[in-house]
Amino acid sequence: MTIKENIEKANQEALKKILDAQPYWVDVKKAIEVCPGLKDNMIMHAGPPIAWNRMGSSQKSAVRGATIYEGWAKDQQEAESLLESGKVVLSPCHEHNTVGSMCGITSPSMPVFVVKNDTDNNEGYVLLYESPEREKLSFGFFDENVLRNLKWIDRVLAPVLKALVDKMGSVNLKPIIARALTMGDELHSRNFASTANFNLEVSPHFFDLDFDSKTLRSVSDFIRRSDQFFLHLVMAAGKVTADAANGIPYSTLVTAIARNGIEVGLRISGLEGEWFTGDAGPIEGLFFAGYTQEDAQPDMGDSAIAETIGLGAFAHAASPSLALTKGDVNLAMKYTQEMEEICVGNNPNFGIPALGGKGTPTGIDIRRVLDSGITPVINTGIAHKQGGQIGVGNSRVPMSVFKDAIIAFQAKYK
Amino acid sequence: MTIKENIEKANQEALKKILDAQPYWVDVKKAIEVCPGLKDNMIMHAGPPIAWNRMGSSQKSAVRGATIYEGWAKDQQEAESLLESGKVVLSPCHEHNTVGSMCGITSPSMPVFVVKNDTDNNEGYVLLYESPEREKLSFGFFDENVLRNLKWIDRVLAPVLKALVDKMGSVNLKPIIARALTMGDELHSRNFASTANFNLEVSPHFFDLDFDSKTLRSVSDFIRRSDQFFLHLVMAAGKVTADAANGIPYSTLVTAIARNGIEVGLRISGLEGEWFTGDAGPIEGLFFAGYTQEDAQPDMGDSAIAETIGLGAFAHAASPSLALTKGDVNLAMKYTQEMEEICVGNNPNFGIPALGGKGTPTGIDIRRVLDSGITPVINTGIAHKQGGQIGVGNSRVPMSVFKDAIIAFQAKYK
Repeated sequence: MTIKENIEKANQEALKKILDAQPYWVDVKKAIEVCPGLKDNMIMHAGPPIAWNRMGSSQKSAVRGATIYEGWAKDQQEAESLLESGKVVLSPCHEHNTVGSMCGITSPSMPVFVVKNDTDNNEGYVLLYESPEREKLSFGFFDENVLRNLKWIDRVLAPVLKALVDKMGSVNLKPIIARALTMGDELHSRNFASTANFNLEVSPHFFDLDFDSKTLRSVSDFIRRSDQFFLHLVMAAGKVTADAANGIPYSTLVTAIARNGIEVGLRISGLEGEWFTGDAGPIEGLFFAGYTQEDAQPDMGDSAIAETIGLGAFAHAASPSLALTKGDVNLAMKYTQEMEEICVGNNPNFGIPALGGKGTPTGIDIRRVLDSGITPVINTGIAHKQGGQIGVGNSRVPMSVFKDAIIAFQAKYK
Repeated sequence: MTIKENIEKANQEALKKILDAQPYWVDVKKAIEVCPGLKDNMIMHAGPPIAWNRMGSSQKSAVRGATIYEGWAKDQQEAESLLESGKVVLSPCHEHNTVGSMCGITSPSMPVFVVKNDTDNNEGYVLLYESPEREKLSFGFFDENVLRNLKWIDRVLAPVLKALVDKMGSVNLKPIIARALTMGDELHSRNFASTANFNLEVSPHFFDLDFDSKTLRSVSDFIRRSDQFFLHLVMAAGKVTADAANGIPYSTLVTAIARNGIEVGLRISGLEGEWFTGDAGPIEGLFFAGYTQEDAQPDMGDSAIAETIGLGAFAHAASPSLALTKGDVNLAMKYTQEMEEICVGNNPNFGIPALGGKGTPTGIDIRRVLDSGITPVINTGIAHKQGGQIGVGNSRVPMSVFKDAIIAFQAKYK
């Protein structure tokens, strides 16, 4: 076979892994119990590898917060010293079968959703959804309220959700995602429908749990107030799906797009273990009142795993009411049609009603990106440099990263 | 003012009543406790007035069932005799501030949702959603299972829902409808999203109720299994909304479209108290496997109250994935655009994302129907003549009914 034939075959194989994935939510555990390679002095972060002294201010703030949360430091100053000393180690979520929203700061004792891909038996992990508030650790904000909420998650939310999934056995995530696509979600910046569908699915099982009514009510109410609750399950579903397609020799498909607020990194199926990085771009978007681009941390988070498996901006045509496009149906359509140019297939499980049921464009091929001159678009939240959410918008992965990846690919597969 | 000016002014006033309505779910009561004019030997039915001996077979079957449910007869034969005797009286739901799904058979002791229009303080009533099964009283089917389920509704579902709404005070229905329109529902034949949104809203409050877990679980699970659960609340919301616009002198707006499986009837705002009727049409639709048009009862149910306030087929563009149009986006759009021709306005509260947020066409003007030659289209279920649901489809109100109405209008407002 020619190299081109090898690539085509490998990409079809990788695409099949994506399409055939069957992600189930199966458990809630502490990160240290499940994330492979996570150490008890390690903090995971979104995006490609980055040293403490190069980290962006919002991500740094979240790391300090996690250090305090873990009880390793009693205040910001002690946390700063500890992190400068190198006694606490930083490592990308993606290298531990994990994904992190925005800053993505995940420390050993934090509880994570465990999602399993039944087709390939691989697992993925992600923090529980933190809060509907703008000021939270995931957006680089830390104070007493954030700490109190993180402790509530550990003490109340995690045990209840664990008991729930134990009782249910597992929750099949793909049908919830598929149905939400017929209900106006693109599953990255809009998760109204997926969260409502998830809630509908699990509601009756709350009554089988051995917790007092007040506790159950607080969890039920947390889900009700959290329009983006399901995003974290989408992310873990995306992670196990993309990981299944990773490490296939000759495949030019993207298996991760991850940003740390300073750099964006790509992982490519046929180039397992390598990161290709470039500057994290600014986010074109809608800022909440009082904020501008000046305040914004550049592109951040592992949530672009949604786009990696054909959701988010790739499924934008399913979500014309998403604020990002200000209700412009044609613009929403345009994003999906544009992304089709750089993908090797469509996902028949994820039909978009506005396109007559056509599946979401799936499987980003770095060759197509270079040939078309179109780079992947990502729907995302915007963090303030000093922490807190200040908007939502679209970002693009810079072309230079794809150029670097293809050069490495050509060097490996001569 | 000329007659034409009087009409325009009256129609704007009627439209404003529709747009300004604020329907809240406020209670669950037995029909006899709340439905005005309902007598303890009376059974209400969907559609315009009809005598027992002219009723369609499926509606008759439901009436016999209700007679047995009430304990007035011990079996079908006794029920039949009783009904022939005239000791049990029949009366249209619409004449008692009530609406009924499909056969719409509502007897005095059955529990109903109480919905109040906060703007005009008028109330409307509708049975609780009966069952996700195809074989049920609302579709003209009656047996031991149906009876057992009706008793469960009375004994379990109604008390729990009543306690729920008592605890919550009220549930505002308009925001749930508005959001569901951005989530693929048209709120007549598709209520996935409205049901999921309703469930999300009420879920936490279940834990405040004084029932055992098993009871609460059964209700929560009933809602989970009932994709059309919210339809009945839409219907009562539609009823209080349309009733608010009824009885305005000179108004040519339609305030009810109701079918009894034999005839379709219209009520017109400026012609209060009158029914204009014609033959109930066949339903063009999708039949479940094994059934054809031959088996079908003609058009039936008060659920066209949804279309009367701009939902259902009028909002079809919001619901391209609805099975009725087989996923044909353009056909879904076409229905909404066509209905715009016969309406006096659009509802800014009910935006359709696929139309850039444009409101649903609202307020059917009988003059526009006659001028355009376009009759209202209705998304509806299809009942077997012997009872049970056998499909879903679209029906049209025949033009002759509008002609009769305009003649009566001209006679009244010379």
